[in-house]
This record gives sequence, C-alpha cells and structure tokens, in this order.
Amino acid sequence: MIGHATGRLVVPGAGVIGLAVARAAAQDGWRVTLVDPAPASGASWVAGGMLAPVTEAWPGEEDLLALGLDSVARWPLFAAAVSADAGFDAGLHPEGTVVAATGSGDRAELHALADHLDSLGRPVQRLTGRELRRLEPAIGPDVRGGISVPGDPSVDNRRLLAALRAACDRAGVAVDTRAVAAVVDDGTAVTGVRLGDGGEIRADAVVVAAGAHSPELHPALAGLVRPVKGEILRLAHRPGALPPPERTVRALVDGRPVYAVPRAVPGHGDLVVGATTAENGFDTTVTVGGVRDLLRDAERVLPGIAEYALVEAVAGLRPGSRDNLPLIGRIGPEGLVAATGHGRNGMLLVPVTAAAVVAALRGDAVPDAARPADPRRVEPAAVERS
Amino acid sequence: MIGHATGRLVVPGAGVIGLAVARAAAQDGWRVTLVDPAPASGASWVAGGMLAPVTEAWPGEEDLLALGLDSVARWPLFAAAVSADAGFDAGLHPEGTVVAATGSGDRAELHALADHLDSLGRPVQRLTGRELRRLEPAIGPDVRGGISVPGDPSVDNRRLLAALRAACDRAGVAVDTRAVAAVVDDGTAVTGVRLGDGGEIRADAVVVAAGAHSPELHPALAGLVRPVKGEILRLAHRPGALPPPERTVRALVDGRPVYAVPRAVPGHGDLVVGATTAENGFDTTVTVGGVRDLLRDAERVLPGIAEYALVEAVAGLRPGSRDNLPLIGRIGPEGLVAATGHGRNGMLLVPVTAAAVVAALRGDAVPDAARPADPRRVEPAAVERS
Repeated sequence: MIGHATGRLVVPGAGVIGLAVARAAAQDGWRVTLVDPAPASGASWVAGGMLAPVTEAWPGEEDLLALGLDSVARWPLFAAAVSADAGFDAGLHPEGTVVAATGSGDRAELHALADHLDSLGRPVQRLTGRELRRLEPAIGPDVRGGISVPGDPSVDNRRLLAALRAACDRAGVAVDTRAVAAVVDDGTAVTGVRLGDGGEIRADAVVVAAGAHSPELHPALAGLVRPVKGEILRLAHRPGALPPPERTVRALVDGRPVYAVPRAVPGHGDLVVGATTAENGFDTTVTVGGVRDLLRDAERVLPGIAEYALVEAVAGLRPGSRDNLPLIGRIGPEGLVAATGHGRNGMLLVPVTAAAVVAALRGDAVPDAARPADPRRVEPAAVERS
Repeated sequence: MIGHATGRLVVPGAGVIGLAVARAAAQDGWRVTLVDPAPASGASWVAGGMLAPVTEAWPGEEDLLALGLDSVARWPLFAAAVSADAGFDAGLHPEGTVVAATGSGDRAELHALADHLDSLGRPVQRLTGRELRRLEPAIGPDVRGGISVPGDPSVDNRRLLAALRAACDRAGVAVDTRAVAAVVDDGTAVTGVRLGDGGEIRADAVVVAAGAHSPELHPALAGLVRPVKGEILRLAHRPGALPPPERTVRALVDGRPVYAVPRAVPGHGDLVVGATTAENGFDTTVTVGGVRDLLRDAERVLPGIAEYALVEAVAGLRPGSRDNLPLIGRIGPEGLVAATGHGRNGMLLVPVTAAAVVAALRGDAVPDAARPADPRRVEPAAVERS
C-alpha cells in the first residue's frame, strides 16, 4: 500500500537506519512498529561514527561519494531536529578529519587520494607532519605528512541511538522486541511480518533495515548483503595522559587503515579506535590479532594513548553490498522497501536514507543522489526461501 | 583468645587466602565469619594461577623458595581435600612449566636462573628451541631455548575460588558482605571488627586476609603491604587455531617477563596471559600500553594466539610486602593474625598459609618454612590509626 502515508508500517531492525526511518515515517503519518529483539545494538552500537564522504572516497565510487556528500549536507539539520525531538543533543561533533601517513608507501597512497579529490573539485589541504601536529598535538613523530578534510565530521553513535530512540517514542513509534523470521507477502504485496515465536504483525508496508541479516527476511533480498566484521576499541583518557585529538584522525600505517574518533561526551570512552575488516560470516569474536593491530597502528599515530584505559573491545557486522552502494528503495512485492547494505557508511547515510525511504513509501521520487542506490539495480541470488 | 580453637573468628577478606584460612579454622573448631563486600573477587579472581616456587626463585630469596617448595608439596593433598569438600574438582592442573627465551640477553638471564637452580640442587632440564617445541608445539620459532620445570604446576584460580566457597559453606563458615572498617582491640586483645556501616562483629580472634587493603585495618599492619597492580588477559581458543600449550609457558621477551597459563576447564577462557607490574596505588585500570605489551610478548612466544578470542582484560592488586615474603602469623594485640603480603605467590602459598594460621590460632608452632614469614620481623610504619 505504498503511496498512502497513513497505513501500518513495520520496520524490522532498530539500528540507526531503522530508528531514523521509523521516526521519519511516523512523522509522515505512518503507524510504525519497530521490531528488534535488541534495539540500538549490533553494528550501530559498535560503529566509530565517522561521517566521512570525502575521506572514504575511492576512485570508481563516485556515486557513493555523491550520496555521501548529499547526506553529510543533511546532517546538521537532521541532528538538530533529532536533538529537538529527544530533548538532548544527538551527538554530532562538527570537527573534521585529518588523514595521516607514516611510511613512504602510505604517503604515496595519500597523495593519490588527494589528487583524486582535487580532480573531483573537492578542497584538500596537504600538510607536513609538523603542520599536522600543530593542528593535533596528539599526533606523534612517526607521522610524516597528511591532509586535512574539515568537511568530514563525526557523531557519537551511542548518543545518536539514544536520541533516535527518544525521538521515536515522541513520534509514537511502537517497539516490539520479538525476532522477525520473515517478511510475508501474498504474491503481489506484503501483508506483514512473521515472528520467530510464530506470531505475525500485519502491515501495509515493510522497510527491511536489518543490516547484515536483511537477506534472511525476504527472497528478493537474497545474497544482496553480506556481513563484514569490524572490531573496534574504546579508550578512555586518564589524568596525566596527553589529551585526545579534537578531530577524527585517520591514518595509513604500513598500508593498514586505522582511525581514532574522539567522543566529546564522556561516559562511553573518550576515543574510538577502529576498525578491522574480516569476512567470516556472522562471527563477532574479538580476536587477539585484531586488537594487536589496532593498538599497534593507533599508537604509531597517537603515541600518548599508551596511558589511556582500554575500556571496551567489541566487534560488529557491517552490512556489505556487492558494489559498496547501499540498497535504499522499493524491491520485490508491493510495499517492500529496503534500507540496508550501508557497509562502512551507515552513520553517514542516515539522513539521506530516511528521506529516500519516506519518499519511496509515499510513491514519490527519491533524492537524485539516492537513485544509484535503487535496490533493483542488482539481481537477488537464486536462493530458495527457507 | 588464641589457643582456644572453639572461639569466634572473623576473617576480613574472602579472597583465596581468607577462604582457605576460614575453611581450615572452621574445620579446626572455630566459629568463623568471613567478611567481604565482594567475596572471591580482587587479586584472587584476576590471578594467573601459577604454582611456581622454582620458576619464581630469585637469588637472595631462598626463604621464599623454601616456603614455596613447602607449599607446592602440600598442593595435591590440599586440592584433593577441597575438591572432596566441594563435591567438584578444585582446578589443580598438574602439568608443569617451561620457560622460554627469545633474544640473547633473555637466554643469558635464563642460563643464570638455571645455574642458580642447579646450585640449590633443584633439577632443571635445559632445552633447545626445537626441544621446547617438541614439548609444546604452540611455541614459535622466535624462541631459541629454555628450561623445563615439571614441578611448577598451576591452578584454575576461579575454579579454586568456587571450590573454596563451597567448602566453606560445608564447614559452616558464615559470610557477611559488609565492608570491614577496622579491627578493634581493647589495648591488649582484639575484640572484633568495626564495619563500614557502623556495626560491629565481636570476635576472639581476627585473621586479616584483606590483601593490599590489609594495612588499613589495624595500625600494627600499617605500611607493611602495598598494592602492586597486574593486568592479565584471558584468551579463548577458536576452531581452526593452534591448540593452547599443555604446560604453563613463561618467557623472557627482550627482558620482559610474560606467561601463559592454560585452563583445562573451559568457560573462563582457555589461556591466561599475564602479567604487567605497576605501582600506582589502588588503580585497577587496564591500560592500552599494558594490553599492547602482553599481546606483543605473548605472540612472540605463542604466535598461534593471534587467532584466539580476547575475552577479558582485567587488573588486580597484588599485596606486595617489603621483602617479598608474606606476612603470616601473630602480630600486634592478642588475637590478631596476619595472612597477607603474598605478592605474586598467593595461589602457591595457600596451603602453607592456611596451615600456619591454624597453628598460630592454636598457639602451636608454625611450619618451619613459614617461620621467616613471621610478621613481627618488620616494624609497622609510624602511621596513626585513622
């Protein structure tokens, strides 16, 4: 029943995407139920929180860059609106990003990224190691140069989740903590979701926002998303230690990417260090090798963190798509909408995803930048519905 | 009221020493109350569990070696008795210890330890790197040589704590989970303990087994024990990874000591890696630098652990004495007995400490090996009771 913003909408998945979609749809007139056995957990809870369209830009992924730039431009208003709904700050941290390079190979790779950004007309400031340290005194002497990208800010993911939950409450979104087994349709249109306990919730439309688990919910999504494990560490500043950076610090250390995102709000650790990348199915084990790599590489860039407390080590599963573009929009039977496959860019793409999903639910055109994310661009895998 | 094994005994501190003392005293006729807001926690919960009189032997600490050898000889009967009381295995792991060396400086230091043990008449088997790997295939190629010490076994500290708690229940020991503020005496003899909530428990004798916090409880103990922080990691074997060693593996890596103690019983991690050493007062923060050192050094010796899960990182406070010998026996007013200051050797010294304390409570002579641990060998610091 797409096109009638007054129907019943079920959203399986109460991560950051599901929460933002539920809030926006409820504000648009839908009666919304979020269904998730563990709201605000999973990849959204683990995320570093970088809003980094530019420093995540890779040659050949211009559609993703355009989508990210569209979304990052929406972030200040989105954060302000969610903060107003929630009654507390949603955690947007406006300071930008610096990218640091250590070895000569790392510097060459960073130069190539800067040249690519130049060719796209994106402003990039090239900095020596000394200039970087003037911006961020926490950066150590092994860093020989880098770039500054003021337009890539960050968000405190856990604060955002709390604010989105409060905003959903305010908007009248219901939360059901049972597990969704499958989206149900009558061959033409969705009729609701079947729950793990055998129950069912009837709906006129379903937005699948179940991250890496999305393909399990409907054959139209089969094989379109896979879990990409990422481990992160949360560090806390201790008295006497060097203060954390103000900006996100990304780096290449002997070819390995590492980042450190400061959290302005205390209580969940002052610095998030991430992230490893591994494809091992639905495994969320934190490994010795992963923690060792993150600590070693982060210390090369920010040596003062040796005196920080290590307060958390945790892994999440990014929902990886085949072409690194998310899947946002109508797919399969009438009333089914995908909002998944965001990979490393989930936090960044929250505002544009919510806007595109609400448009799709209305039957309106999605924002231009979201058109390449149409899920119908890819064929589902020939997997029988279990 | 020492000498009457029928009185009321209060034991502040329900770590492994307090629990073992309480069990033994109750079995000897005392009506025992253990007082601890968090029984079976602290250093006892964090401990690696090595029972290592020989591989902890240092020139100049022959009294400690003799005490450790006395205690390790008591361990099999002690473990069997506690297991019988508890109705389940107390966690003694009879496999011994190998000590590995990496760099040439490490090998020289290990040779000096072996020579020292030879001079004491302790049997030591010198091994090449290849011979070590034949014993323990988990040991990596960076290890160039080492020694085997079959007589230094280990105990699963958390299993031991559970067994001692069950044994205390069986023996009729009462547990009070309020905090002890001070041992109270009338100028001549102890009369009980004052609690943090203002209450009091009257007693004929008090055994202070409060680890690093012991000096806070009576002026006679002032300054005799200090907190020595140690961080440990608990790793869990994952399918496909190299199996953990069967023996305790100790090593010197570029001069830094590291150990890995296998746990035969699953559920709390398969391998305990430790331990850092720091003196920062009562700080139990797990630091980035501590975890980095442990991972780096342990991986040098056991490279297969890179694929293990890192399941826990935690710090405890060893109760360090001035001369590394524990404080076991009567001190201060009549009825006051110390059982603290065990430093790195708490697990090892449990059986001899329990035996010596029961003897002291009876007014009997303590075991010969425990005589150098008489607390009256050292003067308390001139600290006024607060």
